[in-house]
Amino acid sequence: MVDLQLKPARREKLADILYGQILEQIVSGTFAAGDRLPSENDICKAFEVSRPVVREALQRLQADGLVIARQGAGTFVSHKPPGGLLASTPPEQVASVLRVTEVRIALETECARLAAERRSSGELAEIEARLAAFEQALLSGEAGLEEDFAFHLAIANATGNEVFPAVLESLKGRIEDWMRSALNMTRLGSEERRRTIVEEHRNIVDAIARQQADQAALYTKFHLVEARRRLTDARRDR
Amino acid sequence: MVDLQLKPARREKLADILYGQILEQIVSGTFAAGDRLPSENDICKAFEVSRPVVREALQRLQADGLVIARQGAGTFVSHKPPGGLLASTPPEQVASVLRVTEVRIALETECARLAAERRSSGELAEIEARLAAFEQALLSGEAGLEEDFAFHLAIANATGNEVFPAVLESLKGRIEDWMRSALNMTRLGSEERRRTIVEEHRNIVDAIARQQADQAALYTKFHLVEARRRLTDARRDR
Amino acid sequence: MVDLQLKPARREKLADILYGQILEQIVSGTFAAGDRLPSENDICKAFEVSRPVVREALQRLQADGLVIARQGAGTFVSHKPPGGLLASTPPEQVASVLRVTEVRIALETECARLAAERRSSGELAEIEARLAAFEQALLSGEAGLEEDFAFHLAIANATGNEVFPAVLESLKGRIEDWMRSALNMTRLGSEERRRTIVEEHRNIVDAIARQQADQAALYTKFHLVEARRRLTDARRDR
Amino acid sequence: MVDLQLKPARREKLADILYGQILEQIVSGTFAAGDRLPSENDICKAFEVSRPVVREALQRLQADGLVIARQGAGTFVSHKPPGGLLASTPPEQVASVLRVTEVRIALETECARLAAERRSSGELAEIEARLAAFEQALLSGEAGLEEDFAFHLAIANATGNEVFPAVLESLKGRIEDWMRSALNMTRLGSEERRRTIVEEHRNIVDAIARQQADQAALYTKFHLVEARRRLTDARRDR
Repeated sequence: MVDLQLKPARREKLADILYGQILEQIVSGTFAAGDRLPSENDICKAFEVSRPVVREALQRLQADGLVIARQGAGTFVSHKPPGGLLASTPPEQVASVLRVTEVRIALETECARLAAERRSSGELAEIEARLAAFEQALLSGEAGLEEDFAFHLAIANATGNEVFPAVLESLKGRIEDWMRSALNMTRLGSEERRRTIVEEHRNIVDAIARQQADQAALYTKFHLVEARRRLTDARRDR
Repeated sequence: MVDLQLKPARREKLADILYGQILEQIVSGTFAAGDRLPSENDICKAFEVSRPVVREALQRLQADGLVIARQGAGTFVSHKPPGGLLASTPPEQVASVLRVTEVRIALETECARLAAERRSSGELAEIEARLAAFEQALLSGEAGLEEDFAFHLAIANATGNEVFPAVLESLKGRIEDWMRSALNMTRLGSEERRRTIVEEHRNIVDAIARQQADQAALYTKFHLVEARRRLTDARRDR
Repeated sequence: MVDLQLKPARREKLADILYGQILEQIVSGTFAAGDRLPSENDICKAFEVSRPVVREALQRLQADGLVIARQGAGTFVSHKPPGGLLASTPPEQVASVLRVTEVRIALETECARLAAERRSSGELAEIEARLAAFEQALLSGEAGLEEDFAFHLAIANATGNEVFPAVLESLKGRIEDWMRSALNMTRLGSEERRRTIVEEHRNIVDAIARQQADQAALYTKFHLVEARRRLTDARRDR
Repeated sequence: MVDLQLKPARREKLADILYGQILEQIVSGTFAAGDRLPSENDICKAFEVSRPVVREALQRLQADGLVIARQGAGTFVSHKPPGGLLASTPPEQVASVLRVTEVRIALETECARLAAERRSSGELAEIEARLAAFEQALLSGEAGLEEDFAFHLAIANATGNEVFPAVLESLKGRIEDWMRSALNMTRLGSEERRRTIVEEHRNIVDAIARQQADQAALYTKFHLVEARRRLTDARRDR
């Protein structure tokens, strides 16, 4: 733990800086998949931070699937994240960027369900147009940031409940930070990766078109969970 | 349909005004439980509004449980709402006030799940303190508006993800409009009603305390669905 | 732990016998709410059983809400179960009786969702008739075992998928063991308790009648979770 | 509708025979994607069956995603099923074979969730061994029927609740009919298809290994929904 030093931070939370430093050591291979992390106590001492800060950092690493806590046995590295993650996002910001995922899953899963039940044919056409624009952007080698956001917003609009798109708009900055990390890695990734991502979006649209609410929710959750895994699991990064 | 006239509106959407007028006629007994509403076509003509406006109003009435659409047979009144609803909220605002429910269900169900998994003992103590304050307010004959919001915010804080409380704060005005309608009716309601509401909150807290994520989500959804029914179903208004 | 002795068992699993003995000590007050149970190691030694057996017993106690495991701190008693539980069910059978709850939640939540979407008016009438018969039995001071099962079976039939009622029928013996424990306590319980139980059933029927699939699932899950709590939590036993 | 004639049936339900005949006409192209089916009335007359039979057949076609009901507008063909479906399964048995899917989704989603929370390392090793055997069978050009069932059973065993595997065993015949249809098409399908199917299974195992209950449930539901779509949607059949 000797070479772990708290770098000077500006606005980031201590727990996020700690998260970033543990992440860097997993990426660099200091801790390999299956390795046990130092105990909470040892991390407290090495970083000179309080126990709640350590707990918060470990909890976030677990929420992002990077470590596993085993009752009574400690915390273990789950797998190596893709190298590209730290190239696209500074380590101390990764936790913060990923945190919006949980909110998106809660909100957008329900948006897709309600859109499938209520969308007019005009709203469906708009969703399909947004998907076509996103696909076009990805195939042109662009990140498709604006197009991706517009797609998810079109689904929120189709709920017939203006509060959903209003909340999504209020999260636009955070969602775009997240999408920027994800789409940059996608842009540099394989052709197969781009096709996978387009297909995940198309599954959502198909379920909304067929008015299958439960499947629209399923495919939305699948897409968001998989997107997080592409960011955090080297085995998904191809 | 003759006496249904579009009253002058300021900022409300046409669909919400139409919703309010149909609601008034259900409350007044013009349409009784089990009655079929006029067809979409007839409502279009009587209100001089377009079909999408009628569809939106009917969809919202259905979402709020007030009417039922039967494939090929039309739309039927489900049950009478409590008289107190229109005393506490102008008819043309009811749809708008209730719309936040769907967003609360999506967000707060997930907040409760994550809070149960992650809350520190300090966060649990804060949630319990907020519940005690809310209970105290209700028992003193107050509406408990601030206390109710503070309770739900404390759960969002316990997720360890600052985006959840930030979204809740951004919805504070809308959530308080909703709570104002609900709590005013509660304040004037029976002692049993107040006990029921406190118990619904306590169930959420108990599940968070016992770290049962799935039950915390269940009791949160139950509470929000029941709160909407107390507003919209006379049989729940006691 | 000295007075904990493994009683001779016939067909029960070791883990279930251990569960029953810990349960008895919680009921008797040897372990009070908030107390820490002996460590896995100590229980292994005291009962002369293997670690997997201890783990299984503790896991089931946790699944039934009787104990809470705190990461790194041990396992704590959550609350006292009602005295009536051990009067209606031998301690070594409680775990087994309660295990069917998890399967019922999985199956019947989905049955209620599909029944709400698909029930014919004839199927709805049958569900309502089963509820009336169950209510009648409860009010006559009977346990209503047959009537309760018939009610839940009628909902499974209304899914239009014969596999659901076939599975429920195949579980009839286990479900009736569960219902026998629950309904015996109900029969001896208060008038309010009987009204609560009827209302939980009625909520399910109302949602199926209004074709609100999501609410039918919610009220079914709520009913089954609450039924388990009435069996296992003295605060719910009134 | 003239050439639709009720073929002599043995044990199949009338609604299943009608389902099969409509299915055949969608496969043959008599009804193309987007086409409106004849009205309930017209089908009643053409098949000389009662309205409930027609409703049941249409409801099942909708549940399997083959048709879409539009409020007030009728029932429309969603998409063409793969030709291989009728080669692997007699048309009048397709509805019955597919019906077990809904029960599997309800049961196995919950099994995966509980297995992720509770599995011992021995149970995890068993699940991984079952996956390896299934993968081996698929790669050897076999259907992998026994291996597929054994995999899903291993997850049910890891719930620590013997009722789950008991129910799965009681459904073995029906699940194997379903798997036989699916795996036969897979065996004749592309290498990519086999890889997709193995990956869907591996995602479930990974989530159980990482103890992520919510993701284990998500990936299980995704797998079962996708498996049904591979059987019923030509665009998924490759």
